[in-house]
Amino acid sequence: MKHPVYFKAAPGDPPPLTISIPRRARFDELDPLNIVWHGRYASWFEEARVALGDRHGIGYLDFFNRGITIPLKKFHADFHRPLTMNRAYRVEARLHWHEAARLDYDFRILDADGELMSSGYSVQLMIDRAQGVLVAKPEFFEEFCRQWRHGEI
Amino acid sequence: MKHPVYFKAAPGDPPPLTISIPRRARFDELDPLNIVWHGRYASWFEEARVALGDRHGIGYLDFFNRGITIPLKKFHADFHRPLTMNRAYRVEARLHWHEAARLDYDFRILDADGELMSSGYSVQLMIDRAQGVLVAKPEFFEEFCRQWRHGEI
Amino acid sequence: MKHPVYFKAAPGDPPPLTISIPRRARFDELDPLNIVWHGRYASWFEEARVALGDRHGIGYLDFFNRGITIPLKKFHADFHRPLTMNRAYRVEARLHWHEAARLDYDFRILDADGELMSSGYSVQLMIDRAQGVLVAKPEFFEEFCRQWRHGEI
Amino acid sequence: MKHPVYFKAAPGDPPPLTISIPRRARFDELDPLNIVWHGRYASWFEEARVALGDRHGIGYLDFFNRGITIPLKKFHADFHRPLTMNRAYRVEARLHWHEAARLDYDFRILDADGELMSSGYSVQLMIDRAQGVLVAKPEFFEEFCRQWRHGEI
Repeated sequence: MKHPVYFKAAPGDPPPLTISIPRRARFDELDPLNIVWHGRYASWFEEARVALGDRHGIGYLDFFNRGITIPLKKFHADFHRPLTMNRAYRVEARLHWHEAARLDYDFRILDADGELMSSGYSVQLMIDRAQGVLVAKPEFFEEFCRQWRHGEI
Repeated sequence: MKHPVYFKAAPGDPPPLTISIPRRARFDELDPLNIVWHGRYASWFEEARVALGDRHGIGYLDFFNRGITIPLKKFHADFHRPLTMNRAYRVEARLHWHEAARLDYDFRILDADGELMSSGYSVQLMIDRAQGVLVAKPEFFEEFCRQWRHGEI
Repeated sequence: MKHPVYFKAAPGDPPPLTISIPRRARFDELDPLNIVWHGRYASWFEEARVALGDRHGIGYLDFFNRGITIPLKKFHADFHRPLTMNRAYRVEARLHWHEAARLDYDFRILDADGELMSSGYSVQLMIDRAQGVLVAKPEFFEEFCRQWRHGEI
Repeated sequence: MKHPVYFKAAPGDPPPLTISIPRRARFDELDPLNIVWHGRYASWFEEARVALGDRHGIGYLDFFNRGITIPLKKFHADFHRPLTMNRAYRVEARLHWHEAARLDYDFRILDADGELMSSGYSVQLMIDRAQGVLVAKPEFFEEFCRQWRHGEI
């Protein structure tokens, strides 16, 4: 299975930040076909996105505590093979570099043999109450990006 | 099927307030046995509770706008017959009279023939930031109860 | 708000089949920002897709009873404005013509003023146990498509 | 906080079987009050029940593969303190001895300091297609109970 490319890097962009977490299907995520219902993948992807954000201090709360929310603008999932109970999976998230004030994540779900089960992406904007959608990155995130660019993360 | 009695009325209590709403199972509520997963009943019961609260001006937002939250203290469900897709059900909620600052609801899910599929109850307390759990009913709810007692609702 | 175009019709294709259903946000669909969590849109879209499938005899069970499942291959959502409680929305689904054995649906969520809140699409393949992914449309669906092409639906 | 007693042991009953699993709240489990919505506790309890069942070979699939389903007959939750994000919890499940063909589980959710956040219970019956609700324990479960009684588990 070829891995879809959802975001293209420009020359000179720092490599994406990555995380990988283990996950199993819960009984309440299964549908009548005994596979994880497609709408639950948003939760699987989000769990990895949250883990990466928390690790680097750029999670929901890090933004929220500065008066900024980061709602999803886009969500996409491609389903390659069904997820079933009693099997171990990994969810990988990658945060891609972007010059603008947005968060581009892509996701992969892999089984224990490394087979690609599902992939997808999300795009998040940054919004504060005063200005609406932010054009410039907020200062703490700009500082984070400086370190990212310089390979200090 | 005998209908369980979850709350006992004291002599002189006004009769419960009731509501009945139609509902169908959604595909994403079904489990691998092709029946509604037991954890989704909280949503079915809540939909009826919200409808009753909104009709009478004693819903989540009516409390919230006065600085009061009404979190659940107890939740109970008895499962008599499974809920399946493509069948029409009704969810009935009843709010029972209580002298204290709490909301005692019971619930029934019935099929088109009036067969009892499920029943249950919830207990909610009233909390405000300053005092914690309220002992006395807040004024707007006290006024509502006065009308309820006098049969004006 | 311009409405995104997810599927392009070829000359001579019959117009899409459409349905529109009312829907309100439930309390359990809201997130800490008091808006419908992005992962729940799959349920909103599906409710409209199911309604259209059931109306025309091409729903999950119509396929399933012939030994065919119709799992999602792709799911996409664009979030334009947040969905909140206590407001009335409509979900529109459209089934687009395709020569192959697949179901291409797009979706729009509109508020009472006709403002576009969200849009998206799903792609479903047809699978039977013997042949795997179907190339040709199953006979009952082929017959349905004949009527669709001739404007008899 | 005193721990509620949901099931009483008879003299001579073997002690309950127990399990404890770690769990954190996911973003999609939170409600507008920023706490885990009450209806999600069914999933928290179930995760511990499934872990205990799988450990001892008496899980959903162990029954299902013998033609028996184990649907919930009762579900109950008491909410003592709210669950929030970014905190670590443990969910404990205990399976209580019963002479009849049923599964009586109780549950506790504890925070890192051992404070009781929530407790509850579930009752499951055993059903097979031929006989309906089972009166006698199926053979594999009877054998399991023999070992349990003799302290071999």
